[in-house]
Amino acid sequence: MSINGSTKLVFLAGDPVGHTRGYDEYAAAFAAAAIDAVYVPAHVRTGALKAFLAGLSGLGNVAGVVATVPHKLDALTAGDPDETARRAGSANVLRPGKAGGWECTQVDGAGFLVAAQAAGITLAGKQVQIVGAGGAGRAVAMAVASARPSLLRIDDIAPERRAALADAIAQTHPGLAVEAGAGTSDVLINCSTVGMGGDDRMPVGRSLIPDGGCVYDIVNRPDTPLLVAARARRCRTDHGRSMMLAEIPLIVNYLFTR
Amino acid sequence: MSINGSTKLVFLAGDPVGHTRGYDEYAAAFAAAAIDAVYVPAHVRTGALKAFLAGLSGLGNVAGVVATVPHKLDALTAGDPDETARRAGSANVLRPGKAGGWECTQVDGAGFLVAAQAAGITLAGKQVQIVGAGGAGRAVAMAVASARPSLLRIDDIAPERRAALADAIAQTHPGLAVEAGAGTSDVLINCSTVGMGGDDRMPVGRSLIPDGGCVYDIVNRPDTPLLVAARARRCRTDHGRSMMLAEIPLIVNYLFTR
Repeated sequence: MSINGSTKLVFLAGDPVGHTRGYDEYAAAFAAAAIDAVYVPAHVRTGALKAFLAGLSGLGNVAGVVATVPHKLDALTAGDPDETARRAGSANVLRPGKAGGWECTQVDGAGFLVAAQAAGITLAGKQVQIVGAGGAGRAVAMAVASARPSLLRIDDIAPERRAALADAIAQTHPGLAVEAGAGTSDVLINCSTVGMGGDDRMPVGRSLIPDGGCVYDIVNRPDTPLLVAARARRCRTDHGRSMMLAEIPLIVNYLFTR
Repeated sequence: MSINGSTKLVFLAGDPVGHTRGYDEYAAAFAAAAIDAVYVPAHVRTGALKAFLAGLSGLGNVAGVVATVPHKLDALTAGDPDETARRAGSANVLRPGKAGGWECTQVDGAGFLVAAQAAGITLAGKQVQIVGAGGAGRAVAMAVASARPSLLRIDDIAPERRAALADAIAQTHPGLAVEAGAGTSDVLINCSTVGMGGDDRMPVGRSLIPDGGCVYDIVNRPDTPLLVAARARRCRTDHGRSMMLAEIPLIVNYLFTR
């Protein structure tokens, strides 16, 4: 469907946005659902999400805003969060509220679980290491916790952030073994931005890659240094594209089925 | 060119926007110039233009905003106007300023002159009646004044608005015969919104249609009641589509050639 005067807008708000993907996939999802909408990048600089949302409040044809790095924590406080977003402590989709303002949810967790299952990555009974306790990491960790791993360990370059997330999970999932820090695992999940765009760094040392285990990198690139190294160690791997694809129907439903 | 993370945004800000056109034409113009941009509707409610622009200020990929009804007067004061916009007293294109804020211009006048010439509508030496002294009307009137008609008469449903525009033209074009009001003419130009969308009213009484003369309706519809009546009276006619097409290269140049 081509753009016309009645087309609804869905923004992807990120900084940077040049590397972002999904435009063709959203267009296909809208077309399949006979929704007259377009998904467009909005290069919203760090800290400017709320001002951007305020400017959109006067508009009559904004269906919503998908928030990516670095806006997922700001998105939570910019809108009225649902239970999933509140538990995760971050949000990645905002829609106009029925009485003004914004409502938000967080589908990174659900998207990750679908993607992991499709990739044959088992979480139940496994030792899971998550690296990155930012907006996406919080949502993925909450979702993984609900999948009953034998151990969930969370690392982040900011010690207070990894501790805060481990504490939050311990409170919402009593009885689950949760630790802050880094160690060996069966399943390694990168939820940090390391490896994004042209970044050629590894989010963990090579000794933490689980030989013959599973590695999921939420960065939307098949060839991050982490994934290349993991494949060399016979790991089952997948990357953020499958998570993005799993999230599209959830996001379309949140924005267009009221 | 399909949308991707590096695509620049050009908004059409109007209220309503459902009837607006030009999306395919802008896409073709961007493609022809190898510009990675997309033209999208923004349903900015009356009075909300400045708030919308404020929200866009935090963005890194906004090439500009095209302002249509009812935002052309607000656009003038929302940006730093160039000489053309200042003289017209309205603006219809805004771009981010190099030192922050916005700059604006008004290409309705230049677009009208190109469209009139292409339609074989002569202005020099003719009695010209303009109906509508709003954002577009002011710009078209200034452009017509520069084309040396024998008489330029301006009407508007608001008497103070038609008088203000007639005065402004008299000041900028000394020696030109300018009147406020409605009367017979060789060339009748509708610059009001009457006839837009599903509006089936006439902007003037039938007695003011110049038999065998010229009628241009800036409404972007070939079948406004005015144009239908004018063709029945053997007038040379044309409508806003030709003005829009003439403006696209001017707007693309203003937004992408700095």
